[in-house]
Amino acid sequence: MSATATVEDLGTRIEEALRLRFAERAAAAERYGTDFVALWQTAAEHATGGKLLRPRLLLDLLRALSPHGLSKDETQRAIGIAVDVEMLHFAFLLHDDVIDGDLLRRRRPNLIGTLAQRHGVDPSEPVLHWARSSAILLGDLLLTSATIGFARVDASTDTRDRLLALLEHTILETVAGEHADVALSDGVITPDLRTILATSAHKTATYSFVLPLRAAAVLAGAAPAAEEHLAAIGGHLGLAYQLQDDLLSVFGDADRHGKDPFSDLREGKETAIVAYARMTGHWPSIELRFGTADLTPSEATDMRDRLRECGAEDFVRGLVQEQLAAASTVLAEAEADGTLPPAVAHTILQLASRIEGRSE
Amino acid sequence: MSATATVEDLGTRIEEALRLRFAERAAAAERYGTDFVALWQTAAEHATGGKLLRPRLLLDLLRALSPHGLSKDETQRAIGIAVDVEMLHFAFLLHDDVIDGDLLRRRRPNLIGTLAQRHGVDPSEPVLHWARSSAILLGDLLLTSATIGFARVDASTDTRDRLLALLEHTILETVAGEHADVALSDGVITPDLRTILATSAHKTATYSFVLPLRAAAVLAGAAPAAEEHLAAIGGHLGLAYQLQDDLLSVFGDADRHGKDPFSDLREGKETAIVAYARMTGHWPSIELRFGTADLTPSEATDMRDRLRECGAEDFVRGLVQEQLAAASTVLAEAEADGTLPPAVAHTILQLASRIEGRSE
Repeated sequence: MSATATVEDLGTRIEEALRLRFAERAAAAERYGTDFVALWQTAAEHATGGKLLRPRLLLDLLRALSPHGLSKDETQRAIGIAVDVEMLHFAFLLHDDVIDGDLLRRRRPNLIGTLAQRHGVDPSEPVLHWARSSAILLGDLLLTSATIGFARVDASTDTRDRLLALLEHTILETVAGEHADVALSDGVITPDLRTILATSAHKTATYSFVLPLRAAAVLAGAAPAAEEHLAAIGGHLGLAYQLQDDLLSVFGDADRHGKDPFSDLREGKETAIVAYARMTGHWPSIELRFGTADLTPSEATDMRDRLRECGAEDFVRGLVQEQLAAASTVLAEAEADGTLPPAVAHTILQLASRIEGRSE
Repeated sequence: MSATATVEDLGTRIEEALRLRFAERAAAAERYGTDFVALWQTAAEHATGGKLLRPRLLLDLLRALSPHGLSKDETQRAIGIAVDVEMLHFAFLLHDDVIDGDLLRRRRPNLIGTLAQRHGVDPSEPVLHWARSSAILLGDLLLTSATIGFARVDASTDTRDRLLALLEHTILETVAGEHADVALSDGVITPDLRTILATSAHKTATYSFVLPLRAAAVLAGAAPAAEEHLAAIGGHLGLAYQLQDDLLSVFGDADRHGKDPFSDLREGKETAIVAYARMTGHWPSIELRFGTADLTPSEATDMRDRLRECGAEDFVRGLVQEQLAAASTVLAEAEADGTLPPAVAHTILQLASRIEGRSE
């Protein structure tokens, strides 16, 4: 038992395991030429050094679900799965950036931007094409790597089967969400509120919240009822998180959240805020400049003010509260019927309060 | 034992299993909306009805490696893996079409073209974006499906581990080859003959020939030496196949091979033919119009004649013969030392003769 391992220790160990995974891949890439090795090294730079929210959530929950602590082997196995979850996250980000045509993420060059800039400050169209194609192909490898990681987990057949089924469901649902998100932004499907909320839940909540929580339940050998409760809680928290993200992009402090200010308004992103505004009398005046790439800061500020006046901000803040309350209700039920131990409630409530007070 | 199952039976069974896989996926897609179901149905239309070269190769080899016939369970398991190999092939085709910006495959609309045309004969840029994004996302799901299929094979732990390692290596090498191919066509790396041959081997031979042959060896429980010989044979045959493909595109009869005539010359594809021509005095006159989208049929015919005169056609036909001869040498060695039975030699030689006489 290594119940003395602190939260900081685990964070460091996840980071180390992630670096090791990329180093192994870069070594395996050597026989395919320096260009391919460079791709892996660039990937490692972009995939490490982050907050590791998903791996940490998985390990925090697993510890909370394991009152007698975790053995060395159990910790090792959980770190492996947590790294796979992070690889999956990075794969989704890469394909998302290709689909969105983005060269930046949080105002810094993303993998595509970094690769392209190696060939000059103002990369040619062929260089950009090569950089984007690199991101598609690297995403394919990371997706495969995460799936094979789950398949190779050193656990009982039952645990392995549950983890694989969980991963399969997660990838299907995330891709379905991303597919709907693209259809919304390309105007191929109707941007009603119900579709937008389902899309947010599928695209973000499923792999960022439900997957880590359910994987922790499976690794802890928890009963199916515990896993189901955690799935419901993860769905609510994940949707709250995504809605907060939408609110921050429009109403937040760009110096704190670090994103490109008002990028959602310039890109014409179909969020719950916009779906609500569409149903109000303010929409015609908002619509005029919504989704225009050359939106000026003063126009964006105006648009933000109108989104506030029409009630969209309050409405979406209300949705966040509803989702957080729904998570608390499921948690209380699970505690009452003994499905989830108090340590889990503590971890979940901390997470909920971080989502509620989020400014970055 | 069902040693009476004919080759035709197996072809039908592979096709049925493939259709079933897509039908299951379309059913699972239902909860994510009609748009997502339609994506799976379109995918099924494009992925079925083909020649199933890779699944058939796998099953032909497995039968040749199994002198006592295959049990019902063994056949079932092999069909499952063969379907996974076909799903992988389709995933690679989808991402390849996205990277190449193609809307056609063999002069008919590919998945992207079909999806886009649903929204009108002259689809808008957002519709094309949505169709291309759909192909990225569907490719992700098929890649995952193939990997999970390998992970779930109903076999001993040893067989499963060997199959997973084989798949991991195959995907890494194919992606490395595709990555080099993109870098070649975007002018990011130098198009020398050695790089081009390695790229063809990695991009095509590894998953289309080496994978089916090695998977058959693993499923038959063959010794590692047999698997190694088959890997070498698959590498040679696969490279011969790709070189024949390059020859057909330039020197073949478009009415027979069914591809867009001279598309390689218009796209400026870096093939072994072109790499050889670059080293001759004819190159300056070929280079003038090589890789121009508006290449006329008469210019293309001229270019073809010059590629013939400079010796590039003969050179690449020589390479094809060398690869086929190398495959025969490995086969003869394997037969002599008893690693591979005569039935395998028969199957391989038939395949080699089909590659040699290929006109479509």
